[in-house]
Formats: sequence, C-alpha cells, structure tokens
Amino acid sequence: MEKKEMLYEGKAKQIYATDNPNEVIVYFKDDATAFNAQKRGSFEHKGTMNNAITVLIFEYLRDNGIPTHFIKNLNDREQLVKKVEIIPLEFVTRNYVAGSMAKRLGLEEGAKIENTVYDICYKNDDLGDPLINDDHAVLLGAATYDELLDMYELTADINDLLVELFDEAGLILADSKIELGITNDGELVLADEISPDTCRLWDKETGKKLDKDRFRRDLGEVSEAYLEVHERLLKVLKK
Amino acid sequence: MEKKEMLYEGKAKQIYATDNPNEVIVYFKDDATAFNAQKRGSFEHKGTMNNAITVLIFEYLRDNGIPTHFIKNLNDREQLVKKVEIIPLEFVTRNYVAGSMAKRLGLEEGAKIENTVYDICYKNDDLGDPLINDDHAVLLGAATYDELLDMYELTADINDLLVELFDEAGLILADSKIELGITNDGELVLADEISPDTCRLWDKETGKKLDKDRFRRDLGEVSEAYLEVHERLLKVLKK
Repeated sequence: MEKKEMLYEGKAKQIYATDNPNEVIVYFKDDATAFNAQKRGSFEHKGTMNNAITVLIFEYLRDNGIPTHFIKNLNDREQLVKKVEIIPLEFVTRNYVAGSMAKRLGLEEGAKIENTVYDICYKNDDLGDPLINDDHAVLLGAATYDELLDMYELTADINDLLVELFDEAGLILADSKIELGITNDGELVLADEISPDTCRLWDKETGKKLDKDRFRRDLGEVSEAYLEVHERLLKVLKK
Repeated sequence: MEKKEMLYEGKAKQIYATDNPNEVIVYFKDDATAFNAQKRGSFEHKGTMNNAITVLIFEYLRDNGIPTHFIKNLNDREQLVKKVEIIPLEFVTRNYVAGSMAKRLGLEEGAKIENTVYDICYKNDDLGDPLINDDHAVLLGAATYDELLDMYELTADINDLLVELFDEAGLILADSKIELGITNDGELVLADEISPDTCRLWDKETGKKLDKDRFRRDLGEVSEAYLEVHERLLKVLKK
C-alpha cells in the first residue's frame, strides 16, 4: 500500500491517493474547529482517538449489515477506505433536543424527542452548511427524491445501531451527523467518520458530555472525554 | 355586523371581534415591514390594495374549490372572515429561485425551478420565522405528519390556481407564502391574505417586480405596483 499525493485536506482529516484508484487513505489530524471554523484549536489524542473510535464503529456497523467505505485500519492515525464521491449533504439524526436545533426552534437542550428528527444540511462552508429540505436538495442536484429515500433509510438504520451500541456503553446518543458517498461501483455507503466529533454523547447516569461540545463550549477535559468513549467502546465490543 | 374589541394586531393587519363568535373582521393597515420587522415603513394604497386583491383572489380560489376563511368584503379596508386558529407555520411555495432561498443555497435569483419547492417556516418573531422541516413541525406540536400531508396538498392546489391566475394577468408567480387555519368547526382553510405582500410577482415581458420587493429593496414605485396588480386582476377576473 503506497501512500501517494494528498487529494484533499479538510478541517480534521487529510485524504491521500494510493496506487489503487478505488482506494484512498484517511489521515486523522489533531485539529479541531467549531461554529463553521470560527473557533479553531487542537487537542492531544484527538486524531488517534477519532481514528480508533471510527474503526470500532465502522467495523460494528459493517458486521450489522451497513455498507461503509471502510476497508482496514493502517496505523494509529490512518485507515484505508474505498474512494467515494461524497454526497454534498450532512445527515443529522436527533434523538434528544440539542445544539443548533435547540437554538433554531427555541427549545431547551436535553428533552427526548418522540419522533426522531432527521435534518439535512448542504455541505458548503461559504454558506455555513445551512439546514435545507428535500426539495432544496433536489433543486441543488445533490440527490433525487428516490435517492433521498434510500439515504434516509440508511441513516435511520445507522442511528438505530448507534443508539444501541452507545446505550450498552452507558451513553445517550443525543444526535449524530453522518456523511454518505457513492463508490466507484455506484454503491451508496457510509463514509467520513463517526466519533465524538460527529456525535453528541451524554453519560446515562450523570449527563456529563463526552463529545466535541467540551471543546465548543470550553468545558475542559476534552482529551479525557475522547479517551473515555474509546475505552467504553472497547469494553462493549470486547476488543 | 357589530365591530367589537381588537383581538390581535399584527404588522400589517388588525383583527376585531364581532357579535358572532365564529366570525372576525380583518382590517388592512398601510404599514409595511420587512426583514423580520427590522425595516419599517408605510405607503399609500397598501391597505386598500391588499384588501381588494385578497378579496379577488380568495373569491377566485373559493370558486375553484379551495376552502378559505373568507366570508365577504365589508369596505375598502375590511373583510369579514371565519375565526380560525392559525397554524404556526408559513407555507412557502417556490416556482422560481428568489429571496431567502436564493441566499441560503447560494443561487442567483430568476431561474425556473423544475421540482416545485415547498418550504415551511416556524411562525415565531423572536426566532426570525426560521426555516424548519416536517420533523421539527411535529416536534413543535404544530401539526402531525398526516396533517402536514393535507396542508402540503392544499398548498400545492392553491399554488397551481395562483400560477394560472397570475399567468393570465401577465405575471410570473415566483413564490408565495400562505397561512392556514382551523375553523371552530375543525375545517382546515386558507387564511390571512394573498397579495403583493405575500407573493413575488414578475412581469412576464419585462421581468419588472410588482410586489413587496419594491419596498424591501427600495426600488421605488411601490404603490404603483400594488395598483397595477389589482388592475390586472380586475381585468382577468372581469370584475
């Protein structure tokens, strides 16, 4: 596996070509950004923990029938994945009221949501990744209505599996963001990462936040939270 | 018909009780606001034209099978309507790219939309009437999923009829906002108003804006635009 030129650099990750046109290497950085990159920083263990947690979760999802881009872990910051064209939408699933939705709707954080809420946001930094609806997504050419149905179904299946996994780890999955992609073979797969960067995780007993909100809101013990989530997943998954 | 106490004062209208608990009087003011009331003003003929245009359009829609709150016109600024509980959602139908959606999605104004776009916004001045999705509306208790289906169907029927009417009047209906309400009998009806305040209307030949954007964007000839829309509708409807 030869690591070749960098194809893309995002806020928290880099993507490198390999000698196989269908496969790329993802490198996890320690950089952290929040509020559409208005807040920037970095913290110890972020890259390694997000890589390790993403590996555990993508293997768990794959074992439970979810198509993903994941192929194998390479080292503590790098994993080999299928090359995909990323759908320019973020799929956010909300099981509890929190974050941007709480602000938008004027609701307090913390309440359980009876009807699971699915948000889609248009991946566009210049526009601030705005919330959109299905009609906007079709207008933008991001997906057809039929493709959106498939994407929501996959998102719901992933949410169900994640809620169960985190529950066993003593954590409430308040909300999560996933990204989807299309492989060179035309398959719709889960891509990107699933980690405390992309999930709101609250301790079931104490309510303590164990996710990127510790960075966003300057709550301290940021690295410790990522290490603890990893530790708990290792135990649950018996790795 | 006795006009009794004022029940509600909005930005552009007042609502008065009558001696019938199922009926209220709507009074159209000359006041205009824009950008969530950050811009305020008033202009001649606004109240009388919006009342007259709304009467013409609600009669046209009623004659074409749309349930509305409208009962009858009373004078040049007042109409008698069924008392309704307003659904706290704005239903926006977009046939052409314009306004807030153009900004949100980073698109230029003016393109025809192949898939008609339906937006819903949460009617809440403090929050700036934010765009929401169906899941948010259900979470907020504004409607059930089944009720939303009925509301979208009614919205689509109204849009089809309005596009046809304005087309005959030489106008493109770029987008429009409607409000729906529930009567004391439990019927879902079109409420509020339909006027150049709530519709973007572009001359088919010249593209000239004949709607509230003339006020929002300081384009001049605001009253003239409202008078012209009224004039054209009178001709088409042979009143």
